Amino acid sequence: MANETAITPTRQADYPEWYQQVIKAADMAESSPVRGCMVIKPWGYGIWENLQRQLDQRIRDTGHENAYFPLFIPLSFLEKEATHVQGFAKECAVVTHHRLEEKGGKLVPTAPLEEPLIVRPTSETIIGDSFSKWVKSYRDLPLLINQWANVVRWEMRPRLFLRTAEFLWQEGHTVHATEKEAREETMKMLEVYREFAENVLAIPVIAGEKTEGERFPGADNTYCIEAMMQDRKALQAGTSHYLGQNFAKGSDITFTNEQGEIQHAYTTSWGVSTRLIGAMIMTHGDDDGLRVPPKLAPRHVVILPISPKPEQQSAIFAYADSIAASLQSVRYADRTLAVQVDKRDLRGGEKNWQWIKKGIPVRIEVGPRDMESSNVVVYRRDKPHKEKLILKSSEVAEKIAAILEEIQQNYYNEALRTREANIVRNISTFEEFKAFFTPKNQEKPEIHGGFVLAKWCGDSKVEETLKEMKVTIRCMPLEQSGTQGACVITGRPATVDAIFAKAY
Amino acid sequence: MANETAITPTRQADYPEWYQQVIKAADMAESSPVRGCMVIKPWGYGIWENLQRQLDQRIRDTGHENAYFPLFIPLSFLEKEATHVQGFAKECAVVTHHRLEEKGGKLVPTAPLEEPLIVRPTSETIIGDSFSKWVKSYRDLPLLINQWANVVRWEMRPRLFLRTAEFLWQEGHTVHATEKEAREETMKMLEVYREFAENVLAIPVIAGEKTEGERFPGADNTYCIEAMMQDRKALQAGTSHYLGQNFAKGSDITFTNEQGEIQHAYTTSWGVSTRLIGAMIMTHGDDDGLRVPPKLAPRHVVILPISPKPEQQSAIFAYADSIAASLQSVRYADRTLAVQVDKRDLRGGEKNWQWIKKGIPVRIEVGPRDMESSNVVVYRRDKPHKEKLILKSSEVAEKIAAILEEIQQNYYNEALRTREANIVRNISTFEEFKAFFTPKNQEKPEIHGGFVLAKWCGDSKVEETLKEMKVTIRCMPLEQSGTQGACVITGRPATVDAIFAKAY
Repeated sequence: MANETAITPTRQADYPEWYQQVIKAADMAESSPVRGCMVIKPWGYGIWENLQRQLDQRIRDTGHENAYFPLFIPLSFLEKEATHVQGFAKECAVVTHHRLEEKGGKLVPTAPLEEPLIVRPTSETIIGDSFSKWVKSYRDLPLLINQWANVVRWEMRPRLFLRTAEFLWQEGHTVHATEKEAREETMKMLEVYREFAENVLAIPVIAGEKTEGERFPGADNTYCIEAMMQDRKALQAGTSHYLGQNFAKGSDITFTNEQGEIQHAYTTSWGVSTRLIGAMIMTHGDDDGLRVPPKLAPRHVVILPISPKPEQQSAIFAYADSIAASLQSVRYADRTLAVQVDKRDLRGGEKNWQWIKKGIPVRIEVGPRDMESSNVVVYRRDKPHKEKLILKSSEVAEKIAAILEEIQQNYYNEALRTREANIVRNISTFEEFKAFFTPKNQEKPEIHGGFVLAKWCGDSKVEETLKEMKVTIRCMPLEQSGTQGACVITGRPATVDAIFAKAY
Repeated sequence: MANETAITPTRQADYPEWYQQVIKAADMAESSPVRGCMVIKPWGYGIWENLQRQLDQRIRDTGHENAYFPLFIPLSFLEKEATHVQGFAKECAVVTHHRLEEKGGKLVPTAPLEEPLIVRPTSETIIGDSFSKWVKSYRDLPLLINQWANVVRWEMRPRLFLRTAEFLWQEGHTVHATEKEAREETMKMLEVYREFAENVLAIPVIAGEKTEGERFPGADNTYCIEAMMQDRKALQAGTSHYLGQNFAKGSDITFTNEQGEIQHAYTTSWGVSTRLIGAMIMTHGDDDGLRVPPKLAPRHVVILPISPKPEQQSAIFAYADSIAASLQSVRYADRTLAVQVDKRDLRGGEKNWQWIKKGIPVRIEVGPRDMESSNVVVYRRDKPHKEKLILKSSEVAEKIAAILEEIQQNYYNEALRTREANIVRNISTFEEFKAFFTPKNQEKPEIHGGFVLAKWCGDSKVEETLKEMKVTIRCMPLEQSGTQGACVITGRPATVDAIFAKAY
C-alpha cells in the first residue's frame, strides 16, 4: 500500500463517499431494510457505550438522576406547546392501530386507537406530564432528570449516525423555581457538553447561542456546541435549551413557593445523540479509515502474533497472551485496558489493515525475534503506519497509558489546528463572503469554505439570504469581542460576533 | 407504628394491592397517560441500571458483544417464520403514517407508509435480516450478539413492571454452525440467568424446559427460570430458546461449511426484562415496603443526621459527612458504595420510614450523643426496624461490606425457605391437586397454593384441563428424578417431573 490509501475515495476526492466507506471499512454500522433506520454493529456500539458511560458520569456528578418515560406520546400532548407542535409534528412515526389480523393471507392492521400515538421525537411533553404531578412545592425543586432513549424523526435523506430516522440519545429535563436557576442549569450543561466533547471525543467546539430562527421549537434560548468537520462544514454536537415557562405552562408544572403562592416553574432540556459518533468519524478519520480517540475505543490495544512457522505458533500465542495479561491490569481514563489478541487465521497484512481501518489506537506485533529478545513492536494510529516503537515486554504496561493519552491529545490538537486554520476572521464584505462559500468547481464535490467569524446585525432576514447559499449562522459564540463593526451581510452597524458556515 | 405496617394493605390482606402500594411508597414507578406504558422513576431505574450492568458483564464474559437494531419491523418480516407470526402479530403497535398535518385545527396522520411497520415485540426477524448478510462462512461463526432495548407488546391489563405495553429488556441472538453448539449456547445462557437471579437478585429459581404449549413461537425448545413469589404464584424470570434452523430458514441465514457446502445455520435467542424488578419486589418486599438486595440498591447506605437543637446541626452534618466519606472508599460487589447523607428538613420519623419503604439496605443514624462517643447507630433492612447495632465510627467502613453481604444472603435464604416450604411433593391424585389450587374463600383475595412437583404424562391435553383452574405447567426441571410414577392429572404412567402452579 505504498501510494495507496485503505479508503477509496480519499477525503479530498469525495468527502461524503469517504465517510460512508470509513464506516463500512471499520464495520461500525449499516443501513437497515427499515427506511432511515440504522443497524449499529459491535464496533460502533462499543464506541457509543464508552461515550454513554463517560457522559452519564458527568450528568450524575452534576446532580441529575436517570429515569425512563414512555416511547409513545399521545397526539394531544404535542399540541400543548404551540411552537413545539409546529417544529415536531411534521415528520414522525404515527401509531394508529394496536393489532394485526390475517385477512386473505395477508396481515392487516386492525383495532384502531382512539387517539393516535407518535413515537417520541423528543420528550418534553410526555415528561412534562409526569413533572406536573411530581412537582408540588418549592421543596421538590430543582428536579434534575436525565433519560437515555431512542427517538424517531422521520428522515427522507438518512445518513448513518448523522441523520437517521431512529437514533439514540440522552435528554436532560429539569425544573426550577426561578429563571436564574434555570438559566444557570442551561449554561452548566452546555459547559458539561463542551468539556466532554473536547476531553473525551477530542473534538474542539465553539460554545454559543443559536439565533431565533435556529432555536428549539418552544425554547426561549437555545445554546449549542459547534464543531468543524474536515470538509470544513459545521456540525452541531449538542444543544442546551432554556425553555422559560413555555413548557411549564403547556404541561401545567406549578409549585407553591415559599410565600405560599402557586406559580409556574422554569424548565430546561439538553441532549446529545449518536450523531456525536458521526462527528468523531469526520473529525479524526483519515484516508486509511477511522481513528478512535483512546477514551472511546472499544479496545485500546490489539496484539498481533506473527508466526511464520506453524511450529512456533503456540509459543508466540503464549507470549502474546502474557503481554495482554500485563496490559489488562493497567487503567486508562475511567476503565481498565481493553486488549484483544487477534489469533485469527488470516494473512498478517490483511489483519493489520483491518485494525488500522477500525482505528484502534495501538497495535502491538509480536514475532519470533521479538519473543527471543523479550521485545514488542508498538504501532500507533496517530503516527505513520510503519513508524515502530520497540519496547521491552516488561515496560509496555508501564508506558501504555501515557502513549494512549498522547494519542488522545494529538487527535485533539490536530483537530484544533485544522479548525483554527479554517476559521476566517478577516472577511468584511458580502462579495468576499459569497466567494468564500462558493465552490470553485461546480461539477465535483470539493472541500472549500470553513467558518467565517464576522459581525451580524441581528436581523433574521439575513438568515433567509444565507439559506440560498446553504450557509447558516451556526451560533453567536459565548465569547464575544464586544467590538463595533459592520454586518458582513448587510453592512449595517453590528456588535454581535457570529459564526457563519455550511453545516450538516 | 407499634402494631401498624407502613404498607396498607398487608400481603396477607390483599397481595395484588400490596404490590401496587409498595411501588408507590418506594417511589419506583407510576402509570403513564399512555395506555399500558409506565414511567420508571429514579429509584426504580437505578435498580434497573444496577441489574443491567451486572448482567451485561456476564453476557460479555461469555463472549457476546452488544449491538443495536431498528425499533421498527416491516410487516412482511414477521411473516417469515410461520409460528412466530401467530405468536407475535396479535397485539402490537402498528405505525401506518409518517407525518402529521393540521386540518381544521386538529393534527391528523398523513403520508401513509407503503408497508406498515410494527414496533418490535422481539427482534428475531429484524436481527435475522442483518445476520443473513453478516454470516457467509463457518469462519464467521459463532456470531454472539446482545441488544439492550425497549420492546412493545400491547397489553390490555397492564401491571407495573410485570406486564406493560413497553418494557426494557436485553435480547441475545446467536448463530452457530451446528445444532450441538447452538444447544450448548442455549443452556449456557440459561445457567447465566440462573446464577444471576440467585446471586444478584437473591431470588432462588428452578431452571427447566417449557412444554410445547408454552414455547416461544418459532422455537424448537424453550428453557426458563421460574421463581416463586410470596403469594406462592410462579413468575417466569428469564427464557432461553433453541430455535433450531427455523429462523435461519425464515431469514435465510446460510454459511459455507468447511467442506464448501452451503447450509442453514442454527440460532438461539434469550432474554430477561424489567419484569425482574417485579419479581424482586414480590420476592423480598414485606409489609413495610420494598427490600432491595444490596447488589441492586441504587444506594447502599443512607446516613440520617439527628440534631434536636438547631445549633448542633452543622456539627452533626459534618460528622455525617465524615462517615459518608469513609464509606465511599469501600467496594461491595462490583462497585464503590453509594452513600447518601439525607439532610432534608423533614421530621426524623417520616424520613426514616421513607427509607424503610424504599428498602435501602442500611440506615445509619448519627445524633449528638453518637458524635460525642464517636459512635454510629446502624439499622439493617433485613432485621426488625428497632434492632440497633452500635459501631465505632472508625470501624463502620471496615464492617459495612460484610453487613451488606449478610443482608444479600439473608434475603436469598429467606426466599429459599419460603419457596421450599411451598413446594408440595406429595400430591398424587387429581382431587388433592384441585383442592390445593382452589381458594378456600372465593370472596376475597387469598394466598394459597404453591408449586406442585409431580409427574406428568406428557399429553398436552392435560394443559387444557389445567387452564380452567388457571394452573400451568411452569417447567420440566432440568433436574429430573428419573423415577416412574403416575401422572397427577390423568393417572397414566409417567416419568417426567413437572412444576405445576398458578403464575404471573
